[in-house]
Amino acid sequence: MPTLWNYRYAQRTQRMSSSAIRELLKLTEQPDMISFGGGMPAPELFPVAEIADATARVLRDHGAQALQYSTTEGYRPLREWVCETAGRAGLHASPDNILITTGSQQALDLIGKVFINPGDRLLVENPTYLGAMQAWATYGADYVAVDMDDDGMITAGLEAAFRAAPKFIYALPNFQNPSGVTLSLPRRQQMVDLAERYGVPIVEDDPYGQLRFEGEPLPAIATLDSLANDSPATYEGNVIYLSTFSKILAPGFRLAWVIAPPEVIRKLVQAKQGADLHSPSFTQLIAYEVARTGFIDEHVKVIQRVYRERRDLMLAALAAHFPPEVRWTHPGGGLFLWVTLPEGVDAADVLRRAIHEKVAFVPGAPFHPRGGGENTFRLNFSMMPPDKIQTGIARLGRVLSATLDTPGIAAPSLAVTP
Amino acid sequence: MPTLWNYRYAQRTQRMSSSAIRELLKLTEQPDMISFGGGMPAPELFPVAEIADATARVLRDHGAQALQYSTTEGYRPLREWVCETAGRAGLHASPDNILITTGSQQALDLIGKVFINPGDRLLVENPTYLGAMQAWATYGADYVAVDMDDDGMITAGLEAAFRAAPKFIYALPNFQNPSGVTLSLPRRQQMVDLAERYGVPIVEDDPYGQLRFEGEPLPAIATLDSLANDSPATYEGNVIYLSTFSKILAPGFRLAWVIAPPEVIRKLVQAKQGADLHSPSFTQLIAYEVARTGFIDEHVKVIQRVYRERRDLMLAALAAHFPPEVRWTHPGGGLFLWVTLPEGVDAADVLRRAIHEKVAFVPGAPFHPRGGGENTFRLNFSMMPPDKIQTGIARLGRVLSATLDTPGIAAPSLAVTP
Repeated sequence: MPTLWNYRYAQRTQRMSSSAIRELLKLTEQPDMISFGGGMPAPELFPVAEIADATARVLRDHGAQALQYSTTEGYRPLREWVCETAGRAGLHASPDNILITTGSQQALDLIGKVFINPGDRLLVENPTYLGAMQAWATYGADYVAVDMDDDGMITAGLEAAFRAAPKFIYALPNFQNPSGVTLSLPRRQQMVDLAERYGVPIVEDDPYGQLRFEGEPLPAIATLDSLANDSPATYEGNVIYLSTFSKILAPGFRLAWVIAPPEVIRKLVQAKQGADLHSPSFTQLIAYEVARTGFIDEHVKVIQRVYRERRDLMLAALAAHFPPEVRWTHPGGGLFLWVTLPEGVDAADVLRRAIHEKVAFVPGAPFHPRGGGENTFRLNFSMMPPDKIQTGIARLGRVLSATLDTPGIAAPSLAVTP
Repeated sequence: MPTLWNYRYAQRTQRMSSSAIRELLKLTEQPDMISFGGGMPAPELFPVAEIADATARVLRDHGAQALQYSTTEGYRPLREWVCETAGRAGLHASPDNILITTGSQQALDLIGKVFINPGDRLLVENPTYLGAMQAWATYGADYVAVDMDDDGMITAGLEAAFRAAPKFIYALPNFQNPSGVTLSLPRRQQMVDLAERYGVPIVEDDPYGQLRFEGEPLPAIATLDSLANDSPATYEGNVIYLSTFSKILAPGFRLAWVIAPPEVIRKLVQAKQGADLHSPSFTQLIAYEVARTGFIDEHVKVIQRVYRERRDLMLAALAAHFPPEVRWTHPGGGLFLWVTLPEGVDAADVLRRAIHEKVAFVPGAPFHPRGGGENTFRLNFSMMPPDKIQTGIARLGRVLSATLDTPGIAAPSLAVTP
């Protein structure tokens, strides 16, 4: 007999999608697969020895505190470290502006819980981050999607998009997931100005900002907003800023942070109390112990160098192996680049062929909240070592050449419905 | 100018309560306060050395895996350990039945997200766990509350309560928070039978079951249900069972588990993907490394012994110092006991007087979903060392004697509204 629970799901569970892409990507977990599909950091760069030393010190000096319940807001020295780090980048914040979350995914979920009514429209880049849409699906979010070019979201389209009365703007200004594109400085300023004029606040999601391979860092949208709003010590502006330890230290710690006006933090804290009480004290104390010595700044340089080499290698391999009618972005940092196939070519179709050749990526359509993008896909360049990048892109080039040479030929069938 | 976010809160945030009790309890954080208010484990019992050793081994042997992203379901060896532990207690489950969550609080939140529509009625013990009501407030839960006696929820009241068509029963059968009461075996069986007959499934929250000081463990509600539903290897019944590492290892790890039918697990996994992707790989691998050697079983015996001593000490002190018209429960395990004052005496009032005398507890009214209980309060006996238990209960006895001797005299005013 089926469990009684079967008849009891809430209406909102109908909005939770069982992703076809996720089913397809399960096929990529075979050990001989070269996968450019995930968004994972290179595991060989994890600072295992530093974390082992830091853990030993934390357990020796603060064992009871590291293992006990703690406050929902997060470990205060870690929040102070966030303030100091943000301050060096020009965003002045106090601990009252900071909430430590269980990864940035939780920050997205809490923002949904606190701000999104069913039917609310959110203004996003097209394409945008899949995990945000996944978090906000259960809250009934709808979307207004603004197209991007090589300078990021085309802000000239913002005023028209504001007619849809969006609840907020959601932007990933640095090395965007999935496109790898960075929002230019003039457009950041324009976004801040327009948001203030039209009364539309901004969620700035910045997991990759520190992974810049070249050029000078651009000010965060929150920083530009704080200048406009004259926030000298405690930030009181219109931006909720998100960043994370997942890309600069270890995703397995599940630690990220929110910078927001104190009253927004208080609401997010209430929501977090109901969601998981607090993020792990243990990893918070260890992250602080690693960070307080300045180690992360040095470690980020290593990550930047390795990922830059891999990006360069992938760009060179793409130029060598991909057919001339295929285009791709040239990100200045982060983990991803974005490929556009000729109109009418289906990337999900290409993926099925590619999996036969033991190489995988993520098709672009699910990143498009209003549909479209079937001819696009995302490539990750951080996870695979150099030899696999070269072999994998060569294989993928052969698959693409065969696909583009023989349009209309059905892809080999796999036991998966796209 | 106030932040634009100020005008954008979702309707459900109105259901998030800013707890007056929490404000009052902030006053108890002074270092010279003897607080029986929290629900924390005794920090001096945390197995710091074992965790340090386990962490060193995990980082040496599985460093990359412990620091990387992992699956939403949880670390497979840890899920297998949960199956084995449950199996020893008579509940046969497979890894498809298990989800690792970021504390049991997250399990409560995910259950709310997956099952609760606004206005749904939940059938709960009266009083019940405050954190569950906090998690479910944002989903718009309503309550049917069934009174308890020394054998737990009075199941004779269940059939009448089922007329309100509750979505599910929420029960804490072992050493309940807040009352300390345990649901008797006949009543467990009756609850399972009635739930099956009336088609009402059960959430069984069992954070304290292993902290039994005397007598034989009673079978879990899920175990009785699995016998009724003939689930030999994979559990397919009507109970969602929750337990946690917070009370037997370390709350700072933020690790708990759900045992539920596989299709329920799949829905909870979808909800968790949007909520925080997965629980910390780092603490999951360490918890498994500590658990796999059988250490936790030995450690639990130490916790049982120490908490039993503290319970005995508190019961003796209550008998010695509390006025004769005050009554309290005699829990056979767990962390809490429950005090009932004469009708008309307000425990929040007593708390304000008590704080002046540097002793604190949690008033009982907020644990009552349908109101009432103003003359009750909860005492924690796990956290405070023996001398503070004696001193604190003596002080509280003096406050109570003074209060009961002089009814109608206003409590000293504090800068807090109860």
